[in-house]
Formats: sequence, C-alpha cells, structure tokens
Amino acid sequence: MPSPPPDWVKALKPSDPQGSEILDEERSQSSVAVDRLGELLHTKQALDRQQRILNLIQHEKVFDKSQNHSLGRVDRIQRSLAKGKRLQQLAEQHNWSQEDYHQANELIGEPTPYGLHATMFLVTLREQTTPEQKKLFLERAEKYQIIGCYAQTELGHGSNVRGLETTATWNSDDKTFTIHSPALTASKWWIGSLGRTANHAVVMAQLYINGKNYGPHPFVVQIRDLQTHQPLENVYVGDIGPKFGYNTMDNGFLLFNNVKIPHVNMLARFASVDKNTNKYVRPALATLVYGTMTWVRSNIVLQAGGVLARGVTIAVRYCAVRRQFQDRDATEPVGENPVLNYKMVQVRLLPLLAAMYALHFTGRGMMRLYQENQNRMKQASEPGQEKRGAGPEELRAGADLLADLHATSCGLKALASTTAGEGLEVCRRACGGHGYSSYSGIGPYYSDYLPTLTWEGDNYMLTQQVARYLLKAARAVLAGKGTDNDTSKILQAYLARRDKGASFDVLEDDGDIVAAFAWRTAHLTFEALKHRDVEKRSWNSLLVDFWRLSTAHSQYLMVKNFYDAVTSPELAAELDPETRGVVHKLFRLHALHTLEREAAEFFSSSAVTTRQISLTRTNAVMQLLDEVRPHAVRLVDAWKIPDWQLDSSLGRSDGQVYEDLFRRASQENPVNELTFDPYPWNASVLKEPKSKL
Amino acid sequence: MPSPPPDWVKALKPSDPQGSEILDEERSQSSVAVDRLGELLHTKQALDRQQRILNLIQHEKVFDKSQNHSLGRVDRIQRSLAKGKRLQQLAEQHNWSQEDYHQANELIGEPTPYGLHATMFLVTLREQTTPEQKKLFLERAEKYQIIGCYAQTELGHGSNVRGLETTATWNSDDKTFTIHSPALTASKWWIGSLGRTANHAVVMAQLYINGKNYGPHPFVVQIRDLQTHQPLENVYVGDIGPKFGYNTMDNGFLLFNNVKIPHVNMLARFASVDKNTNKYVRPALATLVYGTMTWVRSNIVLQAGGVLARGVTIAVRYCAVRRQFQDRDATEPVGENPVLNYKMVQVRLLPLLAAMYALHFTGRGMMRLYQENQNRMKQASEPGQEKRGAGPEELRAGADLLADLHATSCGLKALASTTAGEGLEVCRRACGGHGYSSYSGIGPYYSDYLPTLTWEGDNYMLTQQVARYLLKAARAVLAGKGTDNDTSKILQAYLARRDKGASFDVLEDDGDIVAAFAWRTAHLTFEALKHRDVEKRSWNSLLVDFWRLSTAHSQYLMVKNFYDAVTSPELAAELDPETRGVVHKLFRLHALHTLEREAAEFFSSSAVTTRQISLTRTNAVMQLLDEVRPHAVRLVDAWKIPDWQLDSSLGRSDGQVYEDLFRRASQENPVNELTFDPYPWNASVLKEPKSKL
Repeated sequence: MPSPPPDWVKALKPSDPQGSEILDEERSQSSVAVDRLGELLHTKQALDRQQRILNLIQHEKVFDKSQNHSLGRVDRIQRSLAKGKRLQQLAEQHNWSQEDYHQANELIGEPTPYGLHATMFLVTLREQTTPEQKKLFLERAEKYQIIGCYAQTELGHGSNVRGLETTATWNSDDKTFTIHSPALTASKWWIGSLGRTANHAVVMAQLYINGKNYGPHPFVVQIRDLQTHQPLENVYVGDIGPKFGYNTMDNGFLLFNNVKIPHVNMLARFASVDKNTNKYVRPALATLVYGTMTWVRSNIVLQAGGVLARGVTIAVRYCAVRRQFQDRDATEPVGENPVLNYKMVQVRLLPLLAAMYALHFTGRGMMRLYQENQNRMKQASEPGQEKRGAGPEELRAGADLLADLHATSCGLKALASTTAGEGLEVCRRACGGHGYSSYSGIGPYYSDYLPTLTWEGDNYMLTQQVARYLLKAARAVLAGKGTDNDTSKILQAYLARRDKGASFDVLEDDGDIVAAFAWRTAHLTFEALKHRDVEKRSWNSLLVDFWRLSTAHSQYLMVKNFYDAVTSPELAAELDPETRGVVHKLFRLHALHTLEREAAEFFSSSAVTTRQISLTRTNAVMQLLDEVRPHAVRLVDAWKIPDWQLDSSLGRSDGQVYEDLFRRASQENPVNELTFDPYPWNASVLKEPKSKL
Repeated sequence: MPSPPPDWVKALKPSDPQGSEILDEERSQSSVAVDRLGELLHTKQALDRQQRILNLIQHEKVFDKSQNHSLGRVDRIQRSLAKGKRLQQLAEQHNWSQEDYHQANELIGEPTPYGLHATMFLVTLREQTTPEQKKLFLERAEKYQIIGCYAQTELGHGSNVRGLETTATWNSDDKTFTIHSPALTASKWWIGSLGRTANHAVVMAQLYINGKNYGPHPFVVQIRDLQTHQPLENVYVGDIGPKFGYNTMDNGFLLFNNVKIPHVNMLARFASVDKNTNKYVRPALATLVYGTMTWVRSNIVLQAGGVLARGVTIAVRYCAVRRQFQDRDATEPVGENPVLNYKMVQVRLLPLLAAMYALHFTGRGMMRLYQENQNRMKQASEPGQEKRGAGPEELRAGADLLADLHATSCGLKALASTTAGEGLEVCRRACGGHGYSSYSGIGPYYSDYLPTLTWEGDNYMLTQQVARYLLKAARAVLAGKGTDNDTSKILQAYLARRDKGASFDVLEDDGDIVAAFAWRTAHLTFEALKHRDVEKRSWNSLLVDFWRLSTAHSQYLMVKNFYDAVTSPELAAELDPETRGVVHKLFRLHALHTLEREAAEFFSSSAVTTRQISLTRTNAVMQLLDEVRPHAVRLVDAWKIPDWQLDSSLGRSDGQVYEDLFRRASQENPVNELTFDPYPWNASVLKEPKSKL
C-alpha cells in the first residue's frame, strides 16, 4: 500500500463547518424517534441480529472491503469464495439460523460463489424432491458435500421456458435419462455458481418419452468430479465472463453431449416417469410450484425498499454535508448552502425517501398475504384434511388467491425493482461528482442490483401478466361475476360512477387519493378491454397500454398499502404522534408526487381535475418537501444500515466525508504504488516496480 | 488462456435461423441508402479517415480489447498508458492531424492517461498564454516533454468555481506566487491525468495581491521531477481511486504546502499581475474565455448522437436476431418472434434511433453557429479592425450571440447528455439478460460516459442558466425591446396569440409540431416570469419550474433543428426520395413521441388539444413505429460504427451473436483458468494454480 502522507498533509482538516457538526445539527432539528421507527420497520429481533452478526464479522480480514473496487475478476472471485467459505464455517460454529446466514450475506455486501447453491439449489431440492431424493441430494447439499446450482436459462432462451432446447430423453431399456444439448443456443447460460463452483446442477430440460415432448422438467446432474473438481466427460462447463456487476459470482455455461443419468435424478415430487410402465405421471399440484416464483417476487418487492434505502441514506447524508453556492436571493454573504436545501435536489431525493418506506410497507403486506395463504393451503393439502371436508374448497380458494397474488407480485416486482434500481442512479447523480467515485458506495451496489430488473421475469414482460389478469377480472365484473376481492371492487366502483364522473379531492382527503389511483387503474383496464374485446386489436399492438396499465395498478397497490400502514393501529400504538405525523407526510409525498408525475393519465381518466393537479404540483408537493426536509437525516437513520454495510465515504453516519474520501484515495488505492514513465518515446510504462506516493 | 473446447462442442451451431441470415434479410427489406446517408452524417472524408486509422491500429496487440473488462485497475491503467504512448508514436510517425488523433482515440474506446494533457492542458495553454509562455510551456507540452493537466475542481468544491480554496499569493519582494492549500477540502480532486501521469498542472487558485482576493486564476505549476517522476517537495499528489467507469484514467488529487512559482507561471493572456507596480491588470476579453465552455458543451451535444448510436446499433441488431415467444395471436406454431417486432421493445428503441439523428443534426447546427460567430469575433478583435469601423459593434453583436449560444448550449448539453446516458441504459435493458454481460459492449461504455452528465456543468445546475436567459428575454419582449433572434420571436408569437389560443395540428402539419413546441416553451417562460416577478417567489422555490422550462426549450430546439435538417436543400440533394422519406419519419417519430411523453405540459399550456394528444399516442406514434421498423437495421448501419469500435458480441454487423458470446466466454475469460476447491472446510480456494476448463 502507498506510503503515509507527510506531516503537513496530516495536519490538514476540511474547512468549516465540519461534517460531524453538520449531521449533529441535522439530527437535533427533528424529533423523529429513530430507534422506535427502526424497530417498527425491522423488528427489534432483526436489529439485534444485525448487530450481533456485524460484531462477529466486520473485523475479520477475510471480509475486508477496501480492495473490492480495484481488483480484477480473477482476484475478486477467489476472495469472494474465501468469504463464502468463512461464512459457512461461522454458520456451523455459531449454529446460525437461515436468517442469521442471510443477514451475514447482506452485510458482506457481495454475492459469493455459493449464492445459488445456498438459495435456488437448496430450495428446489427441498420443494421438488421425493423422500428418497431428499436423502440422496438434499442432505448432502445442506452439508456442502455436494455444491449445486439451478440451470434453467440458455444462451438462446430466457423468459420463454417452453423454448428451452436441452433435452432429457427417457431410455426405457436401461431406465435412464440422456441429457443432451442439441445446439450451441442450448448451452445453459447465466447460471449462478455454475461457472467454477458447483459440482451438481438442477438442469431444466425438455422431457421426451417415446418421442413425445412433455415440456421442461428438472433433473439433477453431476457435472464435476467430487475429488478433482474437473468436469466429467461429455460435460463442457465454464464461467460466462465479466459483467456490469455481480463479478464475484461465477455465472456459468454448460453443455452436455449425451450424458446419462439414473431415473432417480428426475425431481419427482410433482411429475415423474413410471419406471415400469414408461409412462409420464402428471403433476399433482402445479400451483405449489407456481407459488415459488410468487414468493421470490414478493421478496424482491420487500427488499426493494432496503435497496433504495442504501442509496437514499448515502445521498441524504452527503447532500446535508455538501455545501455549494450561496442562496441566490441572499442579500449578504452567508456561506454556501447545503445541497439538500435546493428544491431541485429535494424533489429528486425526498420522494425516493418516501418511496423506500412505501416499498417496505407494500412488500411486508404482500409477504404476509402470501404466507397466510401458503399455510392455509399446506394445511388443506395435508393427508386427512379431506375427511374434515375443508380440503378441496380451501385449496380452490387458495389457488384463486394465489392467482391474484401471482398477478400482483408480477406487477409490483416490476415497479419495485425499477423504482429501486433507477432510484439508486438518481441518488448517485444527486451526489454530484463524488457520486461517480466507487467510494460513494452507490455505483457498485447499483451495478450488482440491476439484474433484478431482468431476472425472475423481465420487468416489461411481467406487465403482460398483470394486464391479462385485470382484463379477466374486468370481463367477470361486466358479466356480473365479480368476486369480493379488491380488484373486483375497484372495477365495480368505477362502473357504478363512470357516467357521473369522479371528483376526488386529493388535496384534502387521503382516502380520496387512494380512490383516485383506483379510478385510474379501473379506467385504464376498461380502455384496454375495449381495445382488445371490442376493437379486436392485436395483443402486440396493446403491449404499451398493458405496461401502462400494470404500472398504474402497481402504483395503486403501493399507495393503498402505504395508506393502510399509516392508518394502522400498529403504527398508532408503536410511534409517538410527531414521528407518526412525519411518516404520514411521507405517505402524502409519495402519493401526490406519483400522481403529479403521471398527471396525464389522471387528467385523461378524469380522476382528478386539472386544477387539482396543478395545485398538487405547485403547492402540495412543494410544501411537503419543506415539511419533510428537516427530518430527512433521521428518517434515513431509522433504516439502521450499518456504516460497514454501506461502505460509503459519502454516507458515513458521522459525516466525515472528506476525511474518508482522502484516506481511501491516498492509503487504500493500489494505483498509487505505480510510478509511471510518462514519456511516449520510452516503451516501458513504469519507472520502477514500487514507488513512494 | 483456457484450453480450447472439445470437438463435440466445436461442432455445435446456434439453432436456426442463423444470425447472419437474419441480418441479411433485415437489410434486404429496406432500400435506405446506407452509404449515402452515412456520408451525409459524417462526410466521406471522415469515413475514409475512420477506415484508414482503423486499418492501422486494430491488429496491433497493444490495442487488444479482450481483457479490458476482466482486469483490475492496476493492470488496466498501465495498459492504457501503453496505448496512449503507442498512439502518440503513430501520430508522429504518420504525421496525424488533430482529427486523426481524435479518431484513433475514439476507436480504441477508452480514455488514456494522456487524455487531459492532449485536450484541456494544451487547449488552455494555446488560449491563455502570452507568446513568452507559449515558448516556455506550450511548445514543450506539444512535444510531450512536459505532461500536464487542468486542475480546477477541489475535494470540497465543484460547480462553484468562486468557492475554490487553493490560493496563489503574490510576493512583491521576490516577484513570485505562493501556491497553497489551506485545508483538506482545498485538495484538487478529479483532475484527469494528474494522479500518476502529469508532471505539470494548470492550477486554478484564488489570486491574492496585497491581501486582496481577485478571484480564481490559472497558474502553471510543476508537480513532479522531469527525470525521476517523483513529486516535488511540498507537493502531495496521487490517484483518487476506483470509479464507476473511467478507470483507465488517473483522476488525481493535489495538495500544495506553500510552493513558490515564478511570475511567468501565471497564464497572462487575459489577466496578469504587473511585476513592477504589483498591480492587477484586468482581463481584456473575458467573453473569449467564456467561449471555451460553450465550445466544449456544443461538442458534447454533437457527440451525444454518436454515443447513443452505439447503444442503439447494438440493441437494434441484437433485437432483430434475438427470438422469444410466439406471437400471442398466432393461430398455429410459427416459431419464435424477433424481439424487435414487439411493440414494447419498439417503443423503447425506435424513438432512441430517432433521437440519435435529432441530436446529431442539432449538434451540427450548434457547432456551425458557434464557429461562424467565433470567426467573426476573431476578425473583429484583430488589431487594425477598429480603423475600419466594424470592430466594436461586431464584437458587441457577437457577444450577444455568444450569450444566446451560451444559454442554448447549457440547456442542450443537459438534455443531450441525459438523453444519451439514459438512452444507453435503455438499450442495455432492451437486450434482456445478455445486456448485462460486458460482452454486450453497452455497460462499460455507459459507465465511461456517465460523468458527461455531471462535468462541464451538472445537468440540473445548467438549467438555471437557460431559465435566467429566457426570463431576461421575456422581460425584454414585454418591454417592447425584443431582438429579432428566434427566442424573442417565439415569445412574441405566443403573446400575440395567447388570448386567442393555439390549435396546432400536430398530426397533419410538421410546421405545427415545431410551433407547438415553441408555444409550450413560451408558455412556461411567462409562467415562470409571473412566479418570479409578480408573485416574487424565491429563486430556490422555482428551481423545479426552471428545470422543466429548460428541458422544454431544449426539446423545442432539437425538434426545430431536426425539422430544419429534414427540410433542407442539402438533404434533398444528397438523398434519394425513399431514404429521405424514412429520415422524415424519424423526425416525426422523435417529435411526436416527445410530445406524447410530455403530454401534461402540452395539455396545460393549451398547445394541443387532448384529442390530438390521445390520437398521437394511439395512432400516430404506433403507426410510425410500424413504418420505421423495417428500416431499423439499415438506419443503424448508416452510422458506420466499426465492429472493432463497438466491441460487442450482441451488436456484430454479421449477426453472429451467440458464436461470439460463446467464444469470448470460453476462450478469452481468465476466470476459466481457475480450478476452485469448492468445499467450505478446505481453507484454500484453489485446487491448483492452473487448470483445464
């Protein structure tokens, strides 16, 4: 590492006011109850866990983050595997729960090569295996005796699972399957933990029995030798190369040349091949499989709030510390103004501050609904339930709710991850020049987060599922067959009042805000239905309308969930009136800022008058920015993201922004060990291998 | 590098249809005259130059790009310096012009550590030196005997140049200046080429004479020894560390501890200190300095089209090759649909295709205006011109035009770079999962481009300059003192017709489209003026309105410039009617898509009826997407970006997307040389130092 700076440099401080004094002052101007709010958001238990794990890992050298952004992929991925190994050792040593392990991964802040083993591989084995297969695969996988991955997408095939090319052909003679890649585009691609780490894979392949295709099914295939870790014969496997982020993960490719696997390697809980009859046995409960994706997407919604919170925490603290220009209307010199006082900065950051709360409450609402339904369905499907007469009906009701949850989770996954991903970039830019430094902590995190906008359903593709569901619901309502769920209700309410028109008072009545969002969704639903069913327009020509519709619907759900949360007894019980008041302002800021940004649709659906929208923008939102501003630092403090996790000079909770940027640049930056030979006529680029700074 | 794949892998091809056949077919379905259009855009001379330089450099090993995305910063920056050196050698050997050198840099596709020497350092020395200083500094710098940088921004000070802390104190006793950094925040920061390369810097510092501050001025300071390349005494200098992009550049920091420099080191063309009287000599022609920033910004506008074109070229070609899902309305199996046929993809990519043309024509218009004015002013300011009586008036008129150009360039710089930067990310996401791979060629380029949104004036900050200019122009028009420039005219036209109202026919009349954009700008200008002058609202409370106003004005300028280009005699002379027709459709797509996206402001300013906007969206834009779609591949071909420059598997002009992704992943990816030991209980992460794939 570079040599330390001379004494005259060490003696330098930032010019006044000091960052730490500034943040102290920011915190003193608000009485938001940071700890109570933090516990409401995360629970005390989770915050205690975070502190406990943090104490354990933050000083271990293997988890050091200082070189993350300077190293190349070859070094980074090895260090990341070392982190993964150490985490696994700690997990065993301290008998960590799943939550503990997940928390530790969050804190170290990068995907490790064990990532997909620890999630998708284990989850798939848990959910889709028979008891015999659990013994054979799951037990060994849980002990890391076999390391696996989940190999679905292919070089030529992403979202469309039915288009996969890899085949699994049943050999009735020797009771095996042959796994084969018939073309280059059949190569598995993007598979996390596959490139260098896994020795097993769950491979999704088109099942062929006696020449007939039964569609994609999951097979466990060993791909590397358990001792030498070399690929097995007729398996070609490797890492797919550098990426925009996620470079500590070995996303991989995988080709098979007629590889035989035994019968037991087809994951057989839901569908299987009968060894004796050589017949396909149909899946029993497809909806439960379907449920996994819903769970994954709901989780993305919940996490999106926390993702955005990292960017907002960094940007809000830094923009409070950063000073730039005098106020233009100031009549005498008063020193430079904190950047966070500028309306152009506020209007970018404070609605994101509100959005991170909205996402959190929405995600929590969804997870609760999902868990309740899963528990109910699991009970109903357990053997013996049929006797009590509750089984089949409950299962059907549950499946209906799951369909609703599925559509909801699709739309919200798209909106939430887009909001979080794009929000991080807004935060980065709001930090001005220093936002571009990796020491800002935003850029690298943004890069790692971006795939979330594409995986588990591309955010644009997903909106079709929402539209399909809403059109179906609208047809049912028009035919008098609406159910009593919320979607039916908002469609019915719109129909009942359509001719009379709406005149929601979004400025004075919070309930009316929610109603206006519902109205807009219903309006767009019936517009789309007219295009499709009456005008018979092609599906393709309506994709843009569907995307708008899905976005509108998901915005409605976020506004509604946030409204439910701020009016809940829980909030009233847990928070003092002032803190509650500020959270309530966040709700209004989120809703009215969204309304104003989407003004054209609120105009054209006649949900709100043009006068109200104009007042929303020029008065209500501007006033809310003024009102939220003094609480901004405490509102991000309440999220309780440890400094070590943020890994940001700009976002330090003590405000020592400039000291930390300088320390890292001068002391942790390996480029400063190089002494260039700067002259073009000298071929060598370095003067000598090592140098003084 | 990894060992080659086995024969059974080598025998694999992508499944049909092959990418090369697809692009052939795409090209055969359009008769857009690619070569003629390319020459219209770039000139034949520039295209010939591109080919000549490309032939010279693309096969030199030093310029190899294959490891760019895998290596860490220490390796990358050394390789980049080697590239910079080699380019300089070639420049001398082949007697390259400035344009040749610039072209070569564009082709190699990354900033080298010479970047700021070759641009800002030399430009500043050329423009701000006396003849004596030219001999002393410029001549040596041009020969790379001294290597320099331009050190303005500081750790605590960016946009606000007046807030800089570094001081230059005149010592009347020994006729020197003392350069000093009084605080840590005074450290120069972000200075390109400073970290490891430069041995000189132009340092912007507050000039103090006899205790009085005369504001920031430029000084040449030697910072490293010309032989050892070690920092001089009382100079602390280094690289500021890893960044979101631009990692081949050594952006640096720099602190001074009372360093003395001679009198001649203050760049003295415009302002100086008189050695004998110890008095400050006022700047003669500040507007010329002012002009440099205008030139830099105009250049950013022009380049933004080309930047966006890279992303659009890649995304359009790939989305033509990529197939996913059957058409939902298809009644029988027809194979998967090219992604580019989906309206949701078209509506993201084709307006960007139109925008890249709009940016190009707008940038070219601005550069022309700037050059004409510079030439006129240079003539007018030459000695002897006063005698002919033309000097002072011309200078004043020129200065007025420069003020207009300055405001225009601020707004357009913001809009253009935001459009290009955000557009690249839209292109990357439109490529789905593979867009995330570095081999897409978009991500790394996007990361390198992003600082353009912040430097040379933060894109949000700049919009205040535009608003200030428009408010001033509106006040003049209201006072009957409008000039005959375009800004005055659109404001006057609006006032004349405001009470009567507008009813522009944007669907049928292209001239009306331009008029509608002008109307909206004028409307927002007078609204803002009312808020400021009548309602006396604070500057800060209006920043969001100003940003909207600047955006609206710049969108008007883009639409107007594009309209002028497509109706120009030049276009009619150079292009056949069909090609011209397609370019004309691009104009309409650009204008109407922008109008529709900003619908709320066109509503509320009554520029266009709600009915017309609704028809714009559902009919006009959708139809234009259909009409432009068949020409998309040829329209990106016309931009003539060489494959070697694109450096993209997805954007290859031959369509061999999957072969190239696979080749790079398996053959150019150093991660595949590692053999992991995957078990957590083994401390070592590697089985052996090298492995077979």
